[in-house]
Amino acid sequence: MAKEIKYGMVGGSLEAFIGEVHRKAIGFDTRVELVCGCFSSREEKNRLTAEAYGIAPERTYADYKAMAAAEAARPDGIDFVSVTTPNNTHYDICKAFLEAGIHVVCDKPLCFEVSEAEELVKLAEEKDLVFGVTYTYTGYTMVKVAREMILSGKLGEIVAVNAEYVQDWLLDELSAENRGKQKNDAVWRTDPAKSGISNSVGDIGTHMENMISYLTGLKIKRLLSTVNTYGRALDLNSNIIVEYENGVNGGYWCSQVAAGKLNGLIARVYGTEGAIEWEQHYPDYLKYTPKGGAVQILSRGTGYITEAAGAASRLPGGHPEGMYVAFANIYRNVVSTIIKKKAGLAPDPADLDFPSVREGLEGVKFVHAVISSAKADSSWIDM
Amino acid sequence: MAKEIKYGMVGGSLEAFIGEVHRKAIGFDTRVELVCGCFSSREEKNRLTAEAYGIAPERTYADYKAMAAAEAARPDGIDFVSVTTPNNTHYDICKAFLEAGIHVVCDKPLCFEVSEAEELVKLAEEKDLVFGVTYTYTGYTMVKVAREMILSGKLGEIVAVNAEYVQDWLLDELSAENRGKQKNDAVWRTDPAKSGISNSVGDIGTHMENMISYLTGLKIKRLLSTVNTYGRALDLNSNIIVEYENGVNGGYWCSQVAAGKLNGLIARVYGTEGAIEWEQHYPDYLKYTPKGGAVQILSRGTGYITEAAGAASRLPGGHPEGMYVAFANIYRNVVSTIIKKKAGLAPDPADLDFPSVREGLEGVKFVHAVISSAKADSSWIDM
Amino acid sequence: MAKEIKYGMVGGSLEAFIGEVHRKAIGFDTRVELVCGCFSSREEKNRLTAEAYGIAPERTYADYKAMAAAEAARPDGIDFVSVTTPNNTHYDICKAFLEAGIHVVCDKPLCFEVSEAEELVKLAEEKDLVFGVTYTYTGYTMVKVAREMILSGKLGEIVAVNAEYVQDWLLDELSAENRGKQKNDAVWRTDPAKSGISNSVGDIGTHMENMISYLTGLKIKRLLSTVNTYGRALDLNSNIIVEYENGVNGGYWCSQVAAGKLNGLIARVYGTEGAIEWEQHYPDYLKYTPKGGAVQILSRGTGYITEAAGAASRLPGGHPEGMYVAFANIYRNVVSTIIKKKAGLAPDPADLDFPSVREGLEGVKFVHAVISSAKADSSWIDM
Amino acid sequence: MAKEIKYGMVGGSLEAFIGEVHRKAIGFDTRVELVCGCFSSREEKNRLTAEAYGIAPERTYADYKAMAAAEAARPDGIDFVSVTTPNNTHYDICKAFLEAGIHVVCDKPLCFEVSEAEELVKLAEEKDLVFGVTYTYTGYTMVKVAREMILSGKLGEIVAVNAEYVQDWLLDELSAENRGKQKNDAVWRTDPAKSGISNSVGDIGTHMENMISYLTGLKIKRLLSTVNTYGRALDLNSNIIVEYENGVNGGYWCSQVAAGKLNGLIARVYGTEGAIEWEQHYPDYLKYTPKGGAVQILSRGTGYITEAAGAASRLPGGHPEGMYVAFANIYRNVVSTIIKKKAGLAPDPADLDFPSVREGLEGVKFVHAVISSAKADSSWIDM
Repeated sequence: MAKEIKYGMVGGSLEAFIGEVHRKAIGFDTRVELVCGCFSSREEKNRLTAEAYGIAPERTYADYKAMAAAEAARPDGIDFVSVTTPNNTHYDICKAFLEAGIHVVCDKPLCFEVSEAEELVKLAEEKDLVFGVTYTYTGYTMVKVAREMILSGKLGEIVAVNAEYVQDWLLDELSAENRGKQKNDAVWRTDPAKSGISNSVGDIGTHMENMISYLTGLKIKRLLSTVNTYGRALDLNSNIIVEYENGVNGGYWCSQVAAGKLNGLIARVYGTEGAIEWEQHYPDYLKYTPKGGAVQILSRGTGYITEAAGAASRLPGGHPEGMYVAFANIYRNVVSTIIKKKAGLAPDPADLDFPSVREGLEGVKFVHAVISSAKADSSWIDM
Repeated sequence: MAKEIKYGMVGGSLEAFIGEVHRKAIGFDTRVELVCGCFSSREEKNRLTAEAYGIAPERTYADYKAMAAAEAARPDGIDFVSVTTPNNTHYDICKAFLEAGIHVVCDKPLCFEVSEAEELVKLAEEKDLVFGVTYTYTGYTMVKVAREMILSGKLGEIVAVNAEYVQDWLLDELSAENRGKQKNDAVWRTDPAKSGISNSVGDIGTHMENMISYLTGLKIKRLLSTVNTYGRALDLNSNIIVEYENGVNGGYWCSQVAAGKLNGLIARVYGTEGAIEWEQHYPDYLKYTPKGGAVQILSRGTGYITEAAGAASRLPGGHPEGMYVAFANIYRNVVSTIIKKKAGLAPDPADLDFPSVREGLEGVKFVHAVISSAKADSSWIDM
Repeated sequence: MAKEIKYGMVGGSLEAFIGEVHRKAIGFDTRVELVCGCFSSREEKNRLTAEAYGIAPERTYADYKAMAAAEAARPDGIDFVSVTTPNNTHYDICKAFLEAGIHVVCDKPLCFEVSEAEELVKLAEEKDLVFGVTYTYTGYTMVKVAREMILSGKLGEIVAVNAEYVQDWLLDELSAENRGKQKNDAVWRTDPAKSGISNSVGDIGTHMENMISYLTGLKIKRLLSTVNTYGRALDLNSNIIVEYENGVNGGYWCSQVAAGKLNGLIARVYGTEGAIEWEQHYPDYLKYTPKGGAVQILSRGTGYITEAAGAASRLPGGHPEGMYVAFANIYRNVVSTIIKKKAGLAPDPADLDFPSVREGLEGVKFVHAVISSAKADSSWIDM
Repeated sequence: MAKEIKYGMVGGSLEAFIGEVHRKAIGFDTRVELVCGCFSSREEKNRLTAEAYGIAPERTYADYKAMAAAEAARPDGIDFVSVTTPNNTHYDICKAFLEAGIHVVCDKPLCFEVSEAEELVKLAEEKDLVFGVTYTYTGYTMVKVAREMILSGKLGEIVAVNAEYVQDWLLDELSAENRGKQKNDAVWRTDPAKSGISNSVGDIGTHMENMISYLTGLKIKRLLSTVNTYGRALDLNSNIIVEYENGVNGGYWCSQVAAGKLNGLIARVYGTEGAIEWEQHYPDYLKYTPKGGAVQILSRGTGYITEAAGAASRLPGGHPEGMYVAFANIYRNVVSTIIKKKAGLAPDPADLDFPSVREGLEGVKFVHAVISSAKADSSWIDM
């Protein structure tokens, strides 16, 4: 029995870590089914993945352009494509599907160049297509609770921001024996051909930028930075000071050489009436301190968080939901928006709660500003 | 394209919380598909659930007995059934499917009476059928890491155990205004007709018992307890001291009236050479202290946990997996075991790493022993 | 210039750990000075300690009985004595000073036998002497805050209690090489001649008992226990279930063989309207959860804790005070009470906030009940 | 009986918070006694404080200059002075005592102007006088453990640093009702006449700078900053990026408007072989992660920390020592150094482990660099 929404994948062969996460997350939504794909440029991998997911051979494409064309032509063609290929291919693939009139969800970073990102924004808007960018972490329920608290004024005026995303998985790049070479699986990360102008800032720094933007609505007016390459071609560590349009400053730090850190995304926002702190390692909890009061540990799945923000919650409090659910929450809203559009209806504001191509563009601009500032001896760069 | 393993559900209509969790968890396994069900005793609910999951009308059963008979008769009948109905129906349903020669996965508690549980064990063993019981929490990777550490002797001889599972969701039962009545959604919890002889001990206490048993392999020789009903028909709080067969003691506490606790399952095991502590709220981490050393916080998805125990891990360390994955890990092993059996092969020991009907029986015995001790002024009760 | 209150010490030579802590804690109080002592039964040690503290040779006593007699006879004799000798000497020494009409502060445990403790209570009361027992941990400010919250009804009726005091410093006793012998510095701990009928329960278990009693005012009606000696003469681990006079139960655990634990005293109290949790390792903080609300982390030195309970606080919040201050708070109240008595005034209720000989007696009874229950196969023992 | 070392105080009347902390901390050292003081410019306060501490009227000075002169002239004059007056008086007072040939311990910040600080350094060195500056936090044992680990190479080469000192006690300055005025007790903090060119950076930012310098030995080559005054005369929040002489960067943040923060000093140092993290709120613990290993929580008072660094420890592990002990550890080393000097001996390197006037000078330079950079639109300022 056919599902309401059909999608295909570009990327996401069986061994591909992130593609599989996307697929499982989409699988949480009973309205959606996977019907086609171009899972790998290697024929064997492509075929095996298709078989595992019961994809018909005629909808197992060797080439994403052929897929875009064929699916656009079918009466039962896909509603959206999920793109989880290497970062340097995002732009071309997304463009092809937009041009074919197909909605797109693309992994972050959207692309490498600001001009490319702007073109994708323009294309999506001209064609009135849905374009999600999977800044996953904003899919967590307690991030939505924090956002609602901040936007509704519970923290008063924001006076200080601090964010970090720190990992240690490229630390081995700095060991004596590796100083001249590169860890195999990390090669593409610090190779400009594969990663554009930035490694760490592009890979994880954009998550910080997006998270603070999502939580607070603050726009970065300008920023300055230092970047550390430790002899590599691209950045492994970066300190950033931002100035928001309201004149307040934020301190950001991203690193892939901080021993002991796994996916240490932390967002801290301080206002005249209180503060919130959220950490990705414990996503079901949120620290909230009202001015003059005790620190409170808010938990997902409880009666004291608001219904609207808590709506993303699926398990009772105290049963961790995990990152699949964060992804699933983003896809759920994308799918709801597509369903509304198919029916000629306006999406609910709640449906539109997913990172779009505009947030993707902001991320690309942020990366360029950080790298430019570092090259200009840490001068301020306007966003 | 048909999947390798087909399953059906008894229970699990769309609004049923735990059935949906089971279904999503099973959905993580690309080898399995849902093909039939008796999702609700209400026709409308049953039909709507079937439609949402694309189940053919002829395999949407109004009655679990009819389902067992029909599926057993079909050449493409289900390999296993997942039972997520109210606890007081488990025994009858499981028995029907076993008798029909179909493998079973049943939510815990297995059933209410020791004699019933023993009968299910006997039936499953006589017919050589797989019978999983979803003590979910043993599906977490770091629980498996802890178990492997303990069973391989890393803690030396065990000298002390401490466990608790504490919640607060029935606290409202004790409020002045509710002293004479019952919270609606809690009625069946403290109604002997629906919950057998125990509420809290049966519902959450068995998780403690199973967790310590899984982690340590220790057998309870005897136990004593106190139980608090606060004027209700069934227990809301219980303190238990157990004596294992090796003469060591453990202190257990379960409660559903402990303000601020959500699903506070904590297992702590102390040995002559070190200790481990695990908490369900932060399932991706494990505290380990070697004798004379610093406390270590082990994380899932890292290089320093063993390959065997770490095999259950699906996401990189620092990206929380959540409870769906714990469920999925249990089902994955059940499914692998069924596949081996279908092929006439012996299951790998790793495949058999799921809680079986024997663990279900232990749980039922534990509940009876705790309630019996409390009734006998906290005398020791042999297991 | 002479201070308002003069004291002497029995025990507390320079190398004696706990005597030095007492002395430094008393030193926080500018109203008090050390003027005499019988610091050690070894002449050299006694003399060196006296010299370090500027004690005159004629007030450096070789014998505590001589000290009691001489100081009682002097017009400028001591107001109180601080007793920090080995536990098996407390009874005789305290008795001697009480008989000499001198106020006493004694380290816990007060003594070994219930009859001895009762005699000390009787003596102190007949002679109207102040008698403090240093259950140190009740001196922490946040313990006082918790007590005030509980006694003022903020938690409603208490429905569950959980306490533990766990250490690992005797774990080495259980190593294979030590199974037949004893660690030198631990010998007296597990030697009945030096420690009476109990090691762990007497040493640290009494702190749990006293802490819960202080926090809640609940009286233990009866208790049952298991005790583990692992082949030693005295207990190293004990699980205890208590029944308070209101019918509620508490679970207690004390251990000196729990790897990784240092001075892990944790008190958790749950009521119909909320809960508190306090941990000695982080004494400046208190977890408080109102029913239906988020967990709150209350901190010492803030505006939201009450003035009365917060009065013990000396440093701004966020600057840890430490255990010396907990001791100092107990001594400060003892000293204030003595000053009032000297002036013929009634002490303020706030001054009387220190553990007295009556609490010392309760501790001795508790130890006897725990050991008796374990010997009677865990039968209930009335307190 | 006279003690080995005699000291006097300038500042520290009975109500003065920090003077009392210094006095209690010095009181931990049995080699030292307080013999004179100029505790307050108000006669009554001065006299009452002197009486409380048993200071003779002839050594209770109305004027610090008179005190310096008189004590220098006495055969039994003080060995050192402890200066805990308002910050704007430090320079004059320290200078007077140095000129009188008396050793000095001064609260931080040392003074306001770099030229003044340099003069004090010069004076102390020319006269070979001991000059301690109480950057308290370096007195904690676990800070010393961290320093020893880093300096001995356990972290490899340092690749990233992150530090913060955040409080919330001036948050009220930003409330709507206070926007035009100042909180009474905060007036001097944001008044240039009382606080020099900086409030937060001078008050708490210098602690970050000193802590990282102490832990790592890294020298700051240059820095850039933003500073937020929110309409006040002086800074309430500052973000700083530093570049050390080895080319590595550090991100620092200090704030007095971060809701929920008390004395949130956190130091985090990352190297090629591991990382350490330390937080002032839990000073007895240190997080250490070896590259590729689990996070370890090291505790004070245990066998696995080195003897040298652990020597500052006074209580068994798990019994919090608190901030008095951090102060006491600094004073103990100052006193040991003075004793050696009096005896004509060279101080042990271990004795010299206290922050000196040179560290005081670094702090003053740091404050000036931060404020200068902010004024120059965040340009780099060389140190």
